Amino acid sequence: MTGQQLRPGLEGVTVAETRLSDIDGEAGELVIGGFPVETLATNATYEETVFLLLEDRLPSAAELDAFRADLASRRELCEETHAVLRRAAEDGEPAMDALRMGLAAATLDADTDEPSEAAKRVVAVIPTVVAAYWRYRSGEAPVAPDPELGHAENYLAMLTGDPPDDHAVRGLETYLNTVVDHGLNASTFTARTVVSTESDLVSAATAAAGALKGPLHGGAPGPVLEMLRTVHESGDPERYVREALDAGERLMGFGHRVYRVRDPRAEVLSTAAERFYAAAAETDFYDTVEQFETVALDLLADHKPDRRLATNVEFYTAALLHGVGVPRALFTATFAVARSGGWMAHGLEQLADNRLVRPVGRYVGTRDRSWTPVEQR
Amino acid sequence: MTGQQLRPGLEGVTVAETRLSDIDGEAGELVIGGFPVETLATNATYEETVFLLLEDRLPSAAELDAFRADLASRRELCEETHAVLRRAAEDGEPAMDALRMGLAAATLDADTDEPSEAAKRVVAVIPTVVAAYWRYRSGEAPVAPDPELGHAENYLAMLTGDPPDDHAVRGLETYLNTVVDHGLNASTFTARTVVSTESDLVSAATAAAGALKGPLHGGAPGPVLEMLRTVHESGDPERYVREALDAGERLMGFGHRVYRVRDPRAEVLSTAAERFYAAAAETDFYDTVEQFETVALDLLADHKPDRRLATNVEFYTAALLHGVGVPRALFTATFAVARSGGWMAHGLEQLADNRLVRPVGRYVGTRDRSWTPVEQR
Repeated sequence: MTGQQLRPGLEGVTVAETRLSDIDGEAGELVIGGFPVETLATNATYEETVFLLLEDRLPSAAELDAFRADLASRRELCEETHAVLRRAAEDGEPAMDALRMGLAAATLDADTDEPSEAAKRVVAVIPTVVAAYWRYRSGEAPVAPDPELGHAENYLAMLTGDPPDDHAVRGLETYLNTVVDHGLNASTFTARTVVSTESDLVSAATAAAGALKGPLHGGAPGPVLEMLRTVHESGDPERYVREALDAGERLMGFGHRVYRVRDPRAEVLSTAAERFYAAAAETDFYDTVEQFETVALDLLADHKPDRRLATNVEFYTAALLHGVGVPRALFTATFAVARSGGWMAHGLEQLADNRLVRPVGRYVGTRDRSWTPVEQR
Repeated sequence: MTGQQLRPGLEGVTVAETRLSDIDGEAGELVIGGFPVETLATNATYEETVFLLLEDRLPSAAELDAFRADLASRRELCEETHAVLRRAAEDGEPAMDALRMGLAAATLDADTDEPSEAAKRVVAVIPTVVAAYWRYRSGEAPVAPDPELGHAENYLAMLTGDPPDDHAVRGLETYLNTVVDHGLNASTFTARTVVSTESDLVSAATAAAGALKGPLHGGAPGPVLEMLRTVHESGDPERYVREALDAGERLMGFGHRVYRVRDPRAEVLSTAAERFYAAAAETDFYDTVEQFETVALDLLADHKPDRRLATNVEFYTAALLHGVGVPRALFTATFAVARSGGWMAHGLEQLADNRLVRPVGRYVGTRDRSWTPVEQR
């Protein structure tokens, strides 16, 4: 095997056939469930999107009602899971650690024997886990899920305790659809690898959430918001960007391993954010965000012309999620709320045509060590 | 990308350089931390093996004492985790689901900020999780970990509530060392993929346990024991094997994706099992196991000469773990007790020279769907 090329990032290695999403990084195009992302994201509810990924078609009105009710019936957490989340909040554990704990326990008190049941349980329960943790962390009682509310609306209601306005719900819904699936990213590939052993979908989702936690994957929209707020207060985006680039820092919100042009998700999210901030009459923050993007792209093109650094999904994720009322500490967990639909659809796709994932390593260690008993060392 | 070869199992794809273990599947050789598996497994305590994987050398006597004490100090579970494990046991959840829950919560009440601390916490806490679950499931109070006992002895003591005899401890110790690491298997690769996002080692271990749960990876030694007991009661191994092969069934305990000859771990474990059963004066069960292997290999060579099916690690795992007193329902969880050392060493190795894992998919879905509002579907 020593003659084999080392592929530590598996770049360009095709590990699965999928009908779930397709990325054209050069053209900046993303197809999800057969739809251009901009069509799906702005029209669908999250439940329609998940149904689409699972069934490869949009639901009829009756099917959508039944699917929404089915998901809504799977949102509850048992008291032992609540106790763990309360403890995690009290100890100041990050949201993604609490999500790992809550998701790992999602088989308790739930119908998950069939993979398709487990998939629905995972998608339904993640918002409850995240919101319960957040309420404990804020020193408030959790808000019980309301089965009358849709997925996105219920999540916002559980976070704040108040009925969210329609603009916020539509903004969140657009976000959830936009990032629901994105090829064989690390968390989705992790989910498929777990399923490839014929393990279950709750284990796959817990594993995927662990991968999403990493700052190289899902962990950067929070700091982007900090940056945008700093810039908004200073009123001088250009100075911020120049100082960052002169200091040799990486500019958050720009650049992606796959995209060489503007991430199509950034396009969808910027439109959604613009609409939300206009409706909320908070256009000045959005103006700063837009100015910052323009200045940053100009200066990045000057400073690093060979890198082709374009706006990535995190940039407008930060602006949009902040607008609709998701706390910064929950940005990555809210990414998990969205991506869970993709994880589960990929898990079921893997199961339907499975092959155990088992790559190889290249041994670079010592050989033929001989044993010395501890008392002679 | 459509011209690219599809590699769903990543067979032969080299994803990492590693100094942890090396497998020669044609020769039937396994090197762990520079030692032939048979040397390491029969001489080391589990703590020595884990130190070796983490540090690339054996510890001095003083270092080993300190490392043992350090691990022993990280075994405790908080009460919220106990409550979840009790609930899992009462609900009849499988051991690997309970392990996923307990491991996911392992950051609670523990020092895991540094990756090397988290690695030790993971290795130290898994036996406590598994044993607590088992005690609850047996309707008994958990046995608190005893920091005076070594890793293997303490695990057995927590399972049974009684001090284990030396033969059982040595048998378990040999098992733990034998399967501590084995190249880029699915669970180890899962751990590395999670770490590749710069996520943490508790998340990586939780993910890896989810992968190990699958019957294609860690989930088959339990049924092997059932088979061996059935054969032992019938007293007629040949008839059992003939009937299984005539019915077109796969014979459990034989065949492995990597090995084309007898798995070297089967060699180590059979010697350990023979020694254990001789010391325990229970040679008749071991005799059945040996006869069964001989008959099965003969008949498999006749029936499937092109398959080169040889004895795998699960066959003697079942015999040995049963002997030393591990309940059948905990075989896969005990595999996790062992493999956690490898997971953590691989996680740290990945972190030291990291590249985000992100393969690609080949899109086989529809394109250019147009949106129909739900009321018109």
